[in-house]
Parts: sequence; structure tokens; C-alpha cells
Amino acid sequence: MKKDYLSVLDLNKEETMALISRAIDLKKASYRGEELKGKTFALIFEKPSLRTRTTFEVAIHHLGGYPIYLAPGDIKLGVREPVKDVARNLDKWVEGIVARVFAHSTLEKLGKFAKIPVINALSDFEHPCQALADFMTIFEIAGTYKVNLSFIGDSNNVSNSLMLLSAMLGTNFTLAHPIGYEPDTKIVETAFELARKTGALIKITTDPLEAAKGADFIYTDVWTSMGQEAEREKRLKDFQGYQVNMELLSYASKDVKVMHCLPAHRGEEITDDVIESEHSVVFHQAENRMHTEKALFLKLFES
Amino acid sequence: MKKDYLSVLDLNKEETMALISRAIDLKKASYRGEELKGKTFALIFEKPSLRTRTTFEVAIHHLGGYPIYLAPGDIKLGVREPVKDVARNLDKWVEGIVARVFAHSTLEKLGKFAKIPVINALSDFEHPCQALADFMTIFEIAGTYKVNLSFIGDSNNVSNSLMLLSAMLGTNFTLAHPIGYEPDTKIVETAFELARKTGALIKITTDPLEAAKGADFIYTDVWTSMGQEAEREKRLKDFQGYQVNMELLSYASKDVKVMHCLPAHRGEEITDDVIESEHSVVFHQAENRMHTEKALFLKLFES
Amino acid sequence: MKKDYLSVLDLNKEETMALISRAIDLKKASYRGEELKGKTFALIFEKPSLRTRTTFEVAIHHLGGYPIYLAPGDIKLGVREPVKDVARNLDKWVEGIVARVFAHSTLEKLGKFAKIPVINALSDFEHPCQALADFMTIFEIAGTYKVNLSFIGDSNNVSNSLMLLSAMLGTNFTLAHPIGYEPDTKIVETAFELARKTGALIKITTDPLEAAKGADFIYTDVWTSMGQEAEREKRLKDFQGYQVNMELLSYASKDVKVMHCLPAHRGEEITDDVIESEHSVVFHQAENRMHTEKALFLKLFES
Repeated sequence: MKKDYLSVLDLNKEETMALISRAIDLKKASYRGEELKGKTFALIFEKPSLRTRTTFEVAIHHLGGYPIYLAPGDIKLGVREPVKDVARNLDKWVEGIVARVFAHSTLEKLGKFAKIPVINALSDFEHPCQALADFMTIFEIAGTYKVNLSFIGDSNNVSNSLMLLSAMLGTNFTLAHPIGYEPDTKIVETAFELARKTGALIKITTDPLEAAKGADFIYTDVWTSMGQEAEREKRLKDFQGYQVNMELLSYASKDVKVMHCLPAHRGEEITDDVIESEHSVVFHQAENRMHTEKALFLKLFES
Repeated sequence: MKKDYLSVLDLNKEETMALISRAIDLKKASYRGEELKGKTFALIFEKPSLRTRTTFEVAIHHLGGYPIYLAPGDIKLGVREPVKDVARNLDKWVEGIVARVFAHSTLEKLGKFAKIPVINALSDFEHPCQALADFMTIFEIAGTYKVNLSFIGDSNNVSNSLMLLSAMLGTNFTLAHPIGYEPDTKIVETAFELARKTGALIKITTDPLEAAKGADFIYTDVWTSMGQEAEREKRLKDFQGYQVNMELLSYASKDVKVMHCLPAHRGEEITDDVIESEHSVVFHQAENRMHTEKALFLKLFES
Repeated sequence: MKKDYLSVLDLNKEETMALISRAIDLKKASYRGEELKGKTFALIFEKPSLRTRTTFEVAIHHLGGYPIYLAPGDIKLGVREPVKDVARNLDKWVEGIVARVFAHSTLEKLGKFAKIPVINALSDFEHPCQALADFMTIFEIAGTYKVNLSFIGDSNNVSNSLMLLSAMLGTNFTLAHPIGYEPDTKIVETAFELARKTGALIKITTDPLEAAKGADFIYTDVWTSMGQEAEREKRLKDFQGYQVNMELLSYASKDVKVMHCLPAHRGEEITDDVIESEHSVVFHQAENRMHTEKALFLKLFES
């Protein structure tokens, strides 16, 4: 097993399935334990967060550990002090690092220089803890990973992790994105390679209706992420037609479920009626963040 | 019992008196317990705070629970994400929400959409946890709620909660405010209605001396609250004559006690010699914040 | 024993040596205990911090206590509320105060008005908790305090505490600073006075080579501290020749150790090759922050 969890690829198929299975057990049991007693964890956030921060704090506390939240601006990674020094300081005091960063390379440096595990709590490249919660949600609802999952919108950290994990777990994954918003080629290549083993169908298209057709799960995310506010007007235009609305859902499987990692911008990538409908499982996903993170902590830190 | 504590009216007279009585016991015992073990609480603050934040964190910790402080700007309630979504996320992970907000309606939305209890840690309409601590202070000093309490200054969230709680508990309450700073009519009507049952005398006047006469407790608060800095000059003028100083105290009961929810602006609503005098019980009130909040948590979350 | 720890002088020689000795034991044992169970501590930071904040939070947690981090801007000491009021509020709720402040006088006011212990987590005058960790590091490496320690650079809070503690513990201490950056005369006088009893040689020079000669430990700190950014250009010029680089080390004892309280500005006061070399003990010092702070908490709060 790798020391860090920076990418969904850092756990293999068996480990990932076991982790989700354990998370389901923890959820059923409303689990509280002492596995992390006496252990402290640095939560470094370069961007603000509700879900990620709160779920990690709660998950750690439920297992008896103690989180230290270092807010944006508190330590100014790489500005006030080189990342390699921050890593080599923290590993003297705490048992693990959870980091939400702008650049994925920051995570890689933390992982390289810290002897303790580092967990990706979102980077510009991947959002693996979100993807774990999402596949737990899919498995709880469908009882299998063999479903059709379609991501409609911006190729981003969330779609990257979902594509990779789909390929790994045998989920058919379609990404529909506007021209100019293509996914990272390295991610796509890796996904195709993984899919050869599992039989997952990985499709990339610019047609949102094609993605919607026969989908069991339709996933979307904001068109303008934190840090891209300057491109907002352009993006609003480019993403016309990629909105997840009731009309789009009519092309999907009858009881299609709609997923979103939140926060949602109603009226942009998703309509209010969809997010408030029976199709929506967005709060189910949000809940599962906590349970999968608990399972991840048990995997990485249980001694 | 109501799920939330957004207003002093959310507990009835008997519940309120029992809560204060329990707080007095907890204080005597320097109580530490495990009633909240395994429970976590989101502390959402749209405005900074010393007393409210620290007392809630300490109260929760003394009972074995774990508070998660979400600072102003951390989650940007209603901006980054609709309040209803924040509510429906948080209730998946934590056992309760404590919120200091600008608009009281934000609390009402949190209470409506979250299944878990929501506690008002100050809004533009009420400050019920402050009022609980204040009446605990009055009861500890006077041995009864049947005293004359006068609030001199701005009709605000603090005076609203004090007026309502006075009416509920049978305390004679006089509010002296400058013209143009009238209390909310709904609050006044509710107070008069409650007072009919308890015999409390509720008086509203523009004459600070009338309010001071015979007062057992004189209460004041800053003239310019957080968010009103632009009106500061006008307010300083309008509130001339409403300062709680030694001369004003000479009209009151001989051993009058002076109350203030802090922070105080010495030389404005209160003089330094008054706040530093034997009459002052401001730190006594501050201490009681912790004890009444502990009792409130036991009431809402003890299973 | 004094109530507060604002200066290295607040513990005498025997107490300081016993504290460091205990810290070494705690480190060896990876100590976890419950001595602070039920106790909470306010951590007031007027400036951001990685090491000080994290080590205090971890130290407190390892002993079973609960820290409340009050970030810069959260309470605005002396602005939103007079320091004396903050002190008299906090001592009603928490068992101790740890404060990182701009002005040392703020600490003195906190200490004067709060009945509970106050710990200096850096002021403009001293950084005693850093000095404790540094002398623990020296003792672990050298097995004695009878070594030659040279501080090369800016006369600041860190060099002040090191000079005083050197004088107290019998360490020969040389300070090399540019003209115009003389140490505080009161500190120097006190150091000379203390040194008379212990036989420590205290030397102050403007010649960095003189300081390097025969040094067992060479210490440096940033030339431009937080809050001095406007003087940066001038300081870069004034401190030319005071850089701790490999050439300077060649004048020192063969296995000289290089110390730095971090964060370091590579290429300014220290070179990258020095900080990454075998001579460097900077992360060793950082680790010891946690252990000496644990020992300090046990001394001040163990009942």
C-alpha cells in the first residue's frame, strides 16, 4: 500500500472496494471508536471548504483523533515557507496531513518530504475523496458498480477522479464536455488502460444528450470553479446546452439519479427542480464523504 | 419542546427557570461530563466573537463534545451556497448547529432545513443565550426574578431578548431609548402579552433618568454595533444623555448592579469608573454565558 | 514559581534545567497523558504561525486538554476590546492563555489582569518557548550547556531569549550584528549580571567571523521579521556579510551545528546548502518545540 492517498490510483481495485464496503458498515453502525486516540492531523486548506473540512474534522473526531485546521492564509504554503520545510516540520508533530491545494504538485511535494501519510482533499488534478464517496453512493443505490455514469460539464478534478475510478471499478463512464474543455490526456490514457482489464466503457463526447441516454447516474459540477471567476462570462456561454435539467433527464434511465459534489449553482449547471427532485442524491453523496473518509483513516492510520 | 433555540420564547417559563437553575448547579460543581461524547457541533459565525465563540467551545468541550468553528468567510452562508443546502449538509454529519448571523431569517432557514437543533448565537433580532446568562446573573445576585431591570440605550437584539424574558419571568423591565431608536413593535406586543400573565411591568420611555429611578439592575450595550460603523457619528450624537455613568447611577437603587454584554466602549455608553466599580457585574455575566450554554446543550442534546 | 511564562527569566536555572530534562523524557516516551483533562486553553495569535500554533495545539492535546485557536482578526486584542477586559473574560472560562503578540506589553497586561497563567508564544521582546526548545536541542546534541553558541544576524526577540538563557545556563554566547541593530540594553545588562554567577561568556560584536570562530552552534533568524516588510531593501543591504553559508561555517568548530527558528529565507540569512546539510538541526529544534511546551504545560497546569 502507498503511504499517501493523492489519487484514486493510490489504492487498487480490491483496496478501494474493501474501503467502500467498510464505509458502508461504519455508516450503518454510526460508528464511534478510539483508533486514532492520541493522534493529531494537520488539515491544510489553501481554499475554503464546508464539506471537505467538516467531514474530515468529524471523521477524525469520531475515531478519537484530533484535527488541526490550518485555514487559507494561516501558513501560506510555499510563500511564507517552502512546501518541503512545512512537510518536514509537520511530520515531527502530527500523524498525518490532509491538504486542499491549488496545485497538485504541492501535494506531491508534501508527500515526498513528509514521512507521514498525505491525503488529497482536492487539487487542480484530482478529488479522490469525493470520488470514493460518490462510488459508495452508487453502490448503495445500485448494489453494483456495473452502471452507466455520465459526467456532463467541465473536465475537472472531479471528473478526472470519477473517470479513473470508473475504469478501475468497471463502471461505464461517459464524459460530455464543450469543445475547448477536453480532459487531461494522461488521465484519459490511464483510464482506457485500466478499462481494458475491467471491461468498463469509457466514452468522451461533446454531446450532452448522448451522455444522458441510458445513464443510471448523471453527474455535474459547477462550470466556474474557485479561482476561475475571471472566466465566468465566457464559461457561461460555452456551457450552454450542458445544463442538467428535467429535459435532459428525460433521455436517461427512468429512475436516473443526479449527482453533484456541491456547492451547486442553481440555474447554471443544474436547475433547482432537478436538485430538489427525487432524482437528486446530492446530500446522500455529501453524507458519504464522512463515512469514506473514516474508512480511509482507518486504512492509513490504524496500527 | 421546540427543536431549535432561536428566541427566548423557544423555551417556556418553566423550562427557562429550570435551565437557569441547572446552570447554577453546573457552575457550583465546575461541572465536567461526557453527555456529548461522540457528538460534534458546527459553530457558524458570520461575525467575529470572543465571548460567544469561546464559551460555546468550552461548554461543548466540558460536556465531552467537539465543536467545529466555521469562521466568517469560511463557508459564506447564502453566498457560496444557499442556506438550505448548508443546513441539509450539516445535519448529515453533526448533531447541532450554533450560528451567529446577520439576518435572523438565516437562522430560521437553518432551523427549517436542518433536522438537528439550531441555536441562536446572536442575530439582528435576538440574543437569547446572552439573555439566559443575564437572568442567571440576576437570580444569583437577587435570589429572585422579581426585580427592576432597566435597559438604557439602543433597542437591539439584546434589549429584545431581555424584554421578552423579563415579561416571561415576571421581571419589571424599562427600556429607555432616544427618539428614532424604538424597539420592534412585534417584540413589544409579545412582551406586553406575556407580562399580563406574570404581572411584569414593561415600560418604554425616552427618559434615561426615569429608567434609572429605582432600578436594581441597569443594563447597557454599545451604541454602534458591528455593521453599523457608518452611522457612528450620528449615533454618538443621538445617544448623548443615555450614558451609564456615576451620576445616572445615583438615581437608581443604592446597590444597583450594572450589566453589559461586552465588548464595552468606555466613554460612550458606559464610563470606565462605572465598569470598574463595585456596581459592575459584567464579568459575572460573561462567566455565566458558559454555564447557561452548558445547561442549554444538556437540555437539547442529552439523550 | 511565577504564574506566567513571559520571559525565560520566569523560570530560574534549576526550574529551566528540570523542565528541559522532563521534555527529553516526554520525547523518549512519545508521551500521551490526561494531566490536562477537562482543561481548555485560549491560543491568541496576533500574527500567523505554523510551528508555534501547531506545537501548542498538539502538546495540549497529547496531555488531554483542549486548545481554542483565536486567529489574527478574531478578537482584535485592544481594538475591539481592551486587553484587560479580554483577560478578565478569558480567566472565567479557560485554564490558561497562550499569546503571540506584537507588543510585549500586551502580554504583561494579559498576565496582570488574568488570574490564570499566560504563556508568551512570541512577542517583540522575547520568544522564550523557542529558546527552551533550542537549549533542549543543544543539550541533546552536546550533553551539556557548556558550549559556544553564536547568533549571527538581527538582534531580536529570539536572540534576546537566547542571550538570557545562555547567561542563566552557563552557555558562552556571542551575538554578531550589523551596526544599527544593537541588542536591547536591558537584556544585555541582565545577561551580564546572570553570567557573573554561571561563568558564561557573553560577547557582542559586529564581526560575524569572530562569532563563527570556535562556535559549536551557529544560530540565525530572518533579517526581515513579520511586520518589518517595509524595511526589507535596507535590511538586505545592512545584513550583507552576515549570511550563514558554508564559508562562514569553515571558521567554526568542525562539527558545528546550525540552528534556525524557521521559517528560513534561503539565500538571505542562510543558504540552501547549509540548511540542507548535515550541520543543520533546524527540524530537530522544531520537533523540540512540542516537547518543551508539553513540559511547560505540565509545570504550569499539573495539579
